[in-house]
Amino acid sequence: MFVHETKVKVRYAETDQMGIVHHANYALYYEIARTECFEASSGITYESMEADGVMLPLLELQSKFLKPAFYNQVLTVKCLVKELPTVRLNVEYEIYNEAEQLINIGKTVLVFVDKQTRKPCQPPKNFMDGVKPHFTT
Amino acid sequence: MFVHETKVKVRYAETDQMGIVHHANYALYYEIARTECFEASSGITYESMEADGVMLPLLELQSKFLKPAFYNQVLTVKCLVKELPTVRLNVEYEIYNEAEQLINIGKTVLVFVDKQTRKPCQPPKNFMDGVKPHFTT
Amino acid sequence: MFVHETKVKVRYAETDQMGIVHHANYALYYEIARTECFEASSGITYESMEADGVMLPLLELQSKFLKPAFYNQVLTVKCLVKELPTVRLNVEYEIYNEAEQLINIGKTVLVFVDKQTRKPCQPPKNFMDGVKPHFTT
Amino acid sequence: MFVHETKVKVRYAETDQMGIVHHANYALYYEIARTECFEASSGITYESMEADGVMLPLLELQSKFLKPAFYNQVLTVKCLVKELPTVRLNVEYEIYNEAEQLINIGKTVLVFVDKQTRKPCQPPKNFMDGVKPHFTT
Repeated sequence: MFVHETKVKVRYAETDQMGIVHHANYALYYEIARTECFEASSGITYESMEADGVMLPLLELQSKFLKPAFYNQVLTVKCLVKELPTVRLNVEYEIYNEAEQLINIGKTVLVFVDKQTRKPCQPPKNFMDGVKPHFTT
Repeated sequence: MFVHETKVKVRYAETDQMGIVHHANYALYYEIARTECFEASSGITYESMEADGVMLPLLELQSKFLKPAFYNQVLTVKCLVKELPTVRLNVEYEIYNEAEQLINIGKTVLVFVDKQTRKPCQPPKNFMDGVKPHFTT
Repeated sequence: MFVHETKVKVRYAETDQMGIVHHANYALYYEIARTECFEASSGITYESMEADGVMLPLLELQSKFLKPAFYNQVLTVKCLVKELPTVRLNVEYEIYNEAEQLINIGKTVLVFVDKQTRKPCQPPKNFMDGVKPHFTT
Repeated sequence: MFVHETKVKVRYAETDQMGIVHHANYALYYEIARTECFEASSGITYESMEADGVMLPLLELQSKFLKPAFYNQVLTVKCLVKELPTVRLNVEYEIYNEAEQLINIGKTVLVFVDKQTRKPCQPPKNFMDGVKPHFTT
């Protein structure tokens, strides 16, 4: 298992007229944290992988909104990668507010895709070499 | 069951550097369609309900991304309300591209909330009076 | 001069906690209207031009916010192209609310850019052939 | 004069299909930096002012896009407040990329507004007390 935490500060534009963070922004918070988790776990950046011809679009997204988030709060987004990635990469998320209350849980399924053919492909070797040590028993 | 369709045209800003619609925008497409479905099924607008002191935040969101969407496509977002709303409102979504291919399916759970107390509440009477006829057997 | 009008319905996610449309969305409204204006004036779509290797990024943006816009309002975005495009395309905007009050004025300067070299270039011939008749005296 | 710098990391969702940051996001970058500048210059947070009944909407926005920004770059957003705020607050912006190239310049005019009456008002005393020392000669 690989676990990584990222801080995200709520932007004013992310609030809506209910006075809370609009739900569509949580997918962005997941993405920011996932990108950092990707790099921390593998030692390669997402943009270098994309430059090398492999993309990582979403197949599935799930969110549960437990408590609202508010403007200017610094949220902690925890990414949990519980299984070694294959053609698919599963990431789970837990978001905590400044009072350390769990306010959101989520899950995404991503798929490695060849940029040319737009077909699913194996993850790049340098990515797998980086992440494997975190999943050995 | 109540079914409603809305057209949404993909904005340039909704694309990302993969050249496809960024996944976070699907939650916005659901919301646009859900708002229209809300009004079509009940005869009242969402904003009139909010002005009357009841809000409808999200509790859960699920999406499956089957095919990409592209800039300037006119998507059809179908909302399906399969059960009579209670304190919770469940809406399912199907998004079709111009070739009538199903490109995305989703599900949201919303909850009626009193704007003052921020606690769950029964849906307003005028909303229920409007939707009930669609669910009688 | 070429003038074109587009309707845009305010999305819930576009509001912020002041209860009005967040100012960053006006650039999106301009873009939606400009894209339609582009097509109406030239007979070619923006995406066909991009597929042919010419892009149209922004060089300058100016906005004045005269009155707020609110959720679910249908705004009218008027594009005014006052001069024949050259390497640069100047577009002015007027946004009206449902009461026909002018709520926003804006201006953008765009530049035709070759997708390969990323350098400014002349607008495509099929675009210019389409727009020229609107600017003859 | 008061000058403040903020770092902003480009999000994937902020890119568009040209492969660069979509122009509408610069208004968000300005806002993130402005909020921090507001607090650094005055010692009070923007949200505390809003809670006390004063809001700060935009009247004017100007941007010049000198060079593109790319995914995952850490941008430096410099805010320059050149004059003591009155009912209006003028802020200028300079955005630099990681190579310290100036990529964007901007300007906003904001107005202090009473939340109840929605009319322009003097800035709060605690805000002015905080900022005045930066503008004495």
